[in-house]
Parts: sequence; structure tokens; C-alpha cells
Amino acid sequence: MTNSKPHLYTALSPALLHLYDVNNAIVVIIDVLRATSTIATALYNGAKCVIPVDSVAKCIELGRQIDGITAGERDGMIAEGLQHGNSPFEYPREFIGGKTLVLTTTNGTKLLHMALDRGAGQIITGSFPNLSAICDYLVAQNQPVVLGCAAWKDKVNIEDLLFAGAVINRIRDNFHINCDSSQIAETLYMDARNDLYSFMKEKNASHYHRLMNYGLEKDIRYCLTPDAANVLPFYENGKLIVL
Amino acid sequence: MTNSKPHLYTALSPALLHLYDVNNAIVVIIDVLRATSTIATALYNGAKCVIPVDSVAKCIELGRQIDGITAGERDGMIAEGLQHGNSPFEYPREFIGGKTLVLTTTNGTKLLHMALDRGAGQIITGSFPNLSAICDYLVAQNQPVVLGCAAWKDKVNIEDLLFAGAVINRIRDNFHINCDSSQIAETLYMDARNDLYSFMKEKNASHYHRLMNYGLEKDIRYCLTPDAANVLPFYENGKLIVL
Repeated sequence: MTNSKPHLYTALSPALLHLYDVNNAIVVIIDVLRATSTIATALYNGAKCVIPVDSVAKCIELGRQIDGITAGERDGMIAEGLQHGNSPFEYPREFIGGKTLVLTTTNGTKLLHMALDRGAGQIITGSFPNLSAICDYLVAQNQPVVLGCAAWKDKVNIEDLLFAGAVINRIRDNFHINCDSSQIAETLYMDARNDLYSFMKEKNASHYHRLMNYGLEKDIRYCLTPDAANVLPFYENGKLIVL
Repeated sequence: MTNSKPHLYTALSPALLHLYDVNNAIVVIIDVLRATSTIATALYNGAKCVIPVDSVAKCIELGRQIDGITAGERDGMIAEGLQHGNSPFEYPREFIGGKTLVLTTTNGTKLLHMALDRGAGQIITGSFPNLSAICDYLVAQNQPVVLGCAAWKDKVNIEDLLFAGAVINRIRDNFHINCDSSQIAETLYMDARNDLYSFMKEKNASHYHRLMNYGLEKDIRYCLTPDAANVLPFYENGKLIVL
């Protein structure tokens, strides 16, 4: 019986994605602080779609062409030439409803395009705000899964691993998991789950530290809140839409 | 004060080593099951030196040239043309004392040569059997450290991470650690430390599974035993010698 279940793997960094076969798999792009949390939030709040692009220049150009909202940060500040930042709080329903968000991020967008280039079967984006939507979808699809952590400039980070662990913890009975990275992720999550924020603080997570220095405690807390924006962002024809 | 301490980083896979500056650092090569455990054991038992090579052909050639003991496995069996395998139990004092061991392994040797090519300041090899020797040396040297996990064909594994975590747990007060991978390693170790073997079993670690299938429970248990062969293997002129 066990072997008839689809496989689930976790890639801890974009630099490890090539080790996993994504061809017939659903790849979950995980960039908890803050890209995929913001994507879920914008879509939950009625954005028509989110278009992830990998440079500020492309963001500006595309935003002009389609009359979209341009957004993205570099080093914690809104990038020059763009209108908005990476915070989920910038995208309430009254602002983003019915609009297209053109978002440039570094780690998450890079991983998404890598998965695309490698022929991923499907691409969806995951974060704590849409944890249940991700889990429900993966269980229902019954296909191989690769949980892809966006990391930070290829360096493994705690928060993306925690999210991978949360997913694994919920859906492990439906998958065949022969993957140490997945076991590590779930173990970390089990340690942290009673208070994810305190865990990040206690472990002095590098991204916790970085965002706190920008005064973004509120963002961190939100990005660690399960099901605050419970939609399923699905990548299709260059856009993330709600499935 | 904190910033005057040297940095410590953990590279979870050879595919992530390039993210860390090894130039002025001591790189600890970690291949718990079983290369670095066997290296420590052979040296502890009086081997003159251990020469790590990356192919069976080189192992045979060098073994003949210097009249060394050739050793290495592929897929759990002694590789064709070699005399011995990867088990630490093959190298008791009465056999290996005074001799040179030419050892071919895949993951550990690959990582060692990568560290060398990248200009590592010093290279030493670590495993539970020589845990204290590693920790004492790192503290005494007071230089930057990169803990390099050999992993399995670049896939992160549990046992190398556990060893990194054990080192970090012992020496963290002497280093500046701003590295999520190190925090993850230590967290995992803290969960596992009361019974490393049971942890590996419970988490269905891929390497645990692989070696158990070869009937090597005894090897696994030994390779998880702290200070069973407490020497410091130091890489110099192509050889690992006891410092």
C-alpha cells in the first residue's frame, strides 16, 4: 500500500531543486517572509492575479503595459520606480480588489522560474496564511509533490522549513516520504508549532532579525498565522490566479 | 564582544558549500555514515595516515604504488579490485597499526576536494567517534569555522546534520552564529541527543534504512557513539594524519 502513495520531497534551497524530479510533480513555492504570504493575501483580498517577475525593470515595464500595481523591495525598502512594498498589509481588499499586482521578489520568483524551466507539472505558492488550502489541494490531487523552499540567496532558512514541516505534518499519511529533508522539516515544526513566532525569535532566525530591524514584527506575526488568507495561488500562463 | 568571536556556519550539502567563505576558515568534513567515522577509527588505531581518493581506479593505483591498504564500497559492497570496505570494524589496531589506508568514498571525498579547491584554510574530518577532539580543536584555534555536511549525492541527510548540531551545541559560546542552518542542526540534535540511534530509526533516516538493509546496525550504533576514537584527523599534503 505504502508504495502506491505518491512521493513527497522537500528541497531546502533553490540550489538543491535539481536533485528532485519535478516533471510530474506539483511544486509548492515557499517564501514565507514575505513573498508567498503577500501573494496569498493579495489574491484572498480579490486581486485579479499576481504576476511574479524577477527584476525591478521588468516590474516597471509590465506594470505600465497592463496598468498594474507595481511592487517590490530591495534591502527592506520599496525599490526605486515601484509603487508598493512586500508587506501583506499593503494589500487590503479596498485597494487590491480587481487589480493586477506585478510583484518582484528575489528568492521566491527565482525558485518559481527554476521550477518552470525544469518542467514542473504544476506550480502553486504556499505560506502559513494559506496552509489549509495547500494541504487540501495536495491531498485531493494525489500526485507527487516537491516542497520548494525559496531560502535566502540559496541559504537555507528556518521559516520556509517550518512551513514545509507544517504541510508534511498534516498530509504525511497520504504520501510516501523517503526524504531526510522532509523529516528534518517536520521535526523542526513539531518543536516550533506551539508558538512559531517565539521559536523564530529564540533561534535568532536570520530573517526574523532582518525584518525586526525594519520594524516589521507585525508582518512576521501575520506571515506565521495559519489560514489568514486561505486561497490557492495557481501558476498559469505567467500569472498566479486563485484556483 | 559577540562580534569579536569568529563566525561559524553550517553547509548542509556540498551543493551549498560555495555560499560560505572557506578561505580563512577551518572546514570540518562530516560524513558520519561512515567515511569520517572510519577515518577517525583507523587513525585512532594507529594507521600512519588515511589518503582519501575519489575513484576506485585511483584507489587501486595508489594502493599499489605505496603498498597501502585499499578500501571502499559501492552500493554497500567492497568495490571490485579493492581489499576492504567502509566499516570502522575492519580497522582494528592489530590490522591497521602503522599502515596507510587508501580510502575511496563518494560524498565525503568529494566535499573534501571541493573545500580544498575553494582554498579552505584548514581541513579536518569529524564524526561522533571524534566529537570531543573536533570541539576542543575548534575552540582552541579561535578561527572561523564551516561545518560541511557530506550529505548523500548532495541530498541533505539527518546524521551529518546531527553531528553538526552536536558540535554547535558544545562550542556555541565561543562563536558568532548567524546561520539558520546551524540553528536547525542544533535544534535537531537537541531533539535526538538522548538516543541518536532511536532518533535515526524513528525518523526513518534514509541512510539508516540503507545500512540496515545491509545488516549494518552495529556500524550505525558505533558511528553514533561519541568519542569512541577521539583523534583529530588533519588534512595535509593529500593525507589525513593525526594532529
